[in-house]
Amino acid sequence: MRVYLDNAATTAMDDRVIEAMLPFMRQHYGNPSSVHSHGREVRSAIEKARKKVAELLNASPAEIFFTSGGTEADNTALVCGIETHGIKHAITSPIEHHAVLHTLEDCAKKGKVKLSLLDVNNKGEINLDQLRELLQANPNSLVSLMHANNEIGNINDLAAIGGMTKEYGAFFHSDTVQTMGHFVHDLKNLPVDAIVAGGHKFHGPKGSGFLYVRKDKKIHPFIHGGAQERNMRGGTENVIGIVGIAKALELAYEDMAGHRAHIEGLKKHFIESLQYHIPEVGFNGLSADFGKSLYTVLNVSLPPSEENRGMLLFNLDLHGISASGGSACSSGATVGSHVLRAINHDPERESVRFSFSRFTTKEEIDYTVEKLKELYGVTV
Amino acid sequence: MRVYLDNAATTAMDDRVIEAMLPFMRQHYGNPSSVHSHGREVRSAIEKARKKVAELLNASPAEIFFTSGGTEADNTALVCGIETHGIKHAITSPIEHHAVLHTLEDCAKKGKVKLSLLDVNNKGEINLDQLRELLQANPNSLVSLMHANNEIGNINDLAAIGGMTKEYGAFFHSDTVQTMGHFVHDLKNLPVDAIVAGGHKFHGPKGSGFLYVRKDKKIHPFIHGGAQERNMRGGTENVIGIVGIAKALELAYEDMAGHRAHIEGLKKHFIESLQYHIPEVGFNGLSADFGKSLYTVLNVSLPPSEENRGMLLFNLDLHGISASGGSACSSGATVGSHVLRAINHDPERESVRFSFSRFTTKEEIDYTVEKLKELYGVTV
Ligand SMILES: Cc1ncc(COP(=O)(O)O)c(C=O)c1O
Ligand SMILES: Cc1ncc(COP(=O)(O)O)c(C=O)c1O
Repeated sequence: MRVYLDNAATTAMDDRVIEAMLPFMRQHYGNPSSVHSHGREVRSAIEKARKKVAELLNASPAEIFFTSGGTEADNTALVCGIETHGIKHAITSPIEHHAVLHTLEDCAKKGKVKLSLLDVNNKGEINLDQLRELLQANPNSLVSLMHANNEIGNINDLAAIGGMTKEYGAFFHSDTVQTMGHFVHDLKNLPVDAIVAGGHKFHGPKGSGFLYVRKDKKIHPFIHGGAQERNMRGGTENVIGIVGIAKALELAYEDMAGHRAHIEGLKKHFIESLQYHIPEVGFNGLSADFGKSLYTVLNVSLPPSEENRGMLLFNLDLHGISASGGSACSSGATVGSHVLRAINHDPERESVRFSFSRFTTKEEIDYTVEKLKELYGVTV
Repeated sequence: MRVYLDNAATTAMDDRVIEAMLPFMRQHYGNPSSVHSHGREVRSAIEKARKKVAELLNASPAEIFFTSGGTEADNTALVCGIETHGIKHAITSPIEHHAVLHTLEDCAKKGKVKLSLLDVNNKGEINLDQLRELLQANPNSLVSLMHANNEIGNINDLAAIGGMTKEYGAFFHSDTVQTMGHFVHDLKNLPVDAIVAGGHKFHGPKGSGFLYVRKDKKIHPFIHGGAQERNMRGGTENVIGIVGIAKALELAYEDMAGHRAHIEGLKKHFIESLQYHIPEVGFNGLSADFGKSLYTVLNVSLPPSEENRGMLLFNLDLHGISASGGSACSSGATVGSHVLRAINHDPERESVRFSFSRFTTKEEIDYTVEKLKELYGVTV
């Protein structure tokens, strides 16, 4: 049996997304910037995709810019947000994705900003009092705090953080890569200035993404070239990626509540089974806390075990189970997770991030529990 | 009849490229950074693609970095070349693509470099004596000169320019977007430090590209994030784009001489037919000069005509013929071409760039000549 429980790293494409992309591989190949008929038919598909994304997020099409993925979108928002708005101070947390953390560290290294990192407790909760103090002391800051953490699943309260950033006139970027397509984003009512998406996290294509930037917080382009994306991103558009991500988001919104119920049911069942069979099991961050974490992620902390020390992912893989040791978006399990380190995870215990999608089945969860029981010598 | 003569803007995908991509849409969806089996099978495809590209270009796999296209690759080479190597002076020409020109202008605007533009004559030839003087006067310069111009087709002598940049220790980047897949690049023997490609210019997918950077001229990443592309480009890889561009390059190299002979034949026929029927026809830049221009591009200058003034592309489009008024890679024909301006093109004449591919047929050329004859009131 092959079991894929690494959906926070990437998801399988939905067949309907592939179907939507194929005509733009086979027939409609024009350059969307060309004014002739071959170009116009493709341009119209891109603008339809932009309108669809905007509509779903309750934003305006002029606020949506397609990118090559979540990482490029994060880089654009941060680097160009800082440049465009003359920002000298940035605030983030040590458990952000490297797309944010490394980008801001690079800005700091180049002397563009002073960088402040918020404290996190051992549950991965960030210190909002400290955020307020920093905002107070540093007018015109940039704040980058993710909507949900990709390793431990913790969800930040964007309304609360956004309200605070508004109070102090800060630029608020939130890395929403893990929540896009899994939660509703109502951008007319959410006080964020920039959010991002990567299509492959919700059954769309890899190499697709978008950036939302609020109308009154416009930023300069990150990639310079032609006049594409209303002068916001040079480069011939990844047409199939754009058509694909829009279709994937449409499908995600079509039955989000149904998918959520299905996945939450599996996650609950997984937690209960583990607790029953391996009583010393723990859950990192808030990942076992429904409502405060991604329903798609469960970060499991397993008791010390000689057989599995440093080998648990490998052992699972031998049984056909694909899961992750941290952020599979960077270079696999070997480097160790900066998130688990930040929340002082006991290095004697093994941690595995299991992550689910609407395609995950109860059989896959049960099989995984069985194999974990075997690996931990549980016989009942 | 629908005739596509805008292959310098973009090309139709080869069916065999689509076939190579499909398994990575339908079956192999893992994240290449994941260490488990789902990830490994995809990682191996990426590294195979890198090896293939390197092999075809006579480079080493460690010198090839996949990007979202030619524009991102150009931006990376220029912005990070300048930063990494402490460069304070950049040299380019006014007829470069905007991916180069706008990027260097932005670097200059931000005070990172002083920018020098080489003179070009009315054939679009750049002044190499001036290049030598500038290199002499400004040690540690960056030189960015394209291999071939996308509008007028002029080919620069990379060996001569590269030799000169080496003499003066400059960093030499060449925008090879228009020659990749159409000419052989032998990087062990060509004195360039960085070149780039966009897959959709040679029957690969839009949204794919790569950057070559010579081993001893390593540069920092442009997009920060995970450890992908050996820490040179953060972001989950566009797997289908990578597989697609490698396949497209492989196919291009498989019968490059055959494709060239076919296309050169068409171009010759096109030139002769036009000269026969519209004696006042001209050809911009060196585009009618075989050996000194892209065989894929013919930039036609037509005599003044009341009926076609500012309307020629539109009139061709009405007859189903897709061609371009300049760089279709930026925003169509309306803005006017900075290249034609730089070579002092007579604004009373209409210019059209026709560009060909291995899929172009003699019937398409003949049909286009017929329609041009009609539009210009030629009755014989
Ligand atoms: C929270 C978060 N941000 C950013 C990214 C980067 O997205 P991508 O790798 O698709 O560019 C990821 C996942 O990889 C993520 O989980
Ligand atoms: C010479 C040249 N450089 C760069 C580019 C940019 O490539 P892309 O738009 O695929 O990023 C193009 C074409 O668009 C080009 O013709």
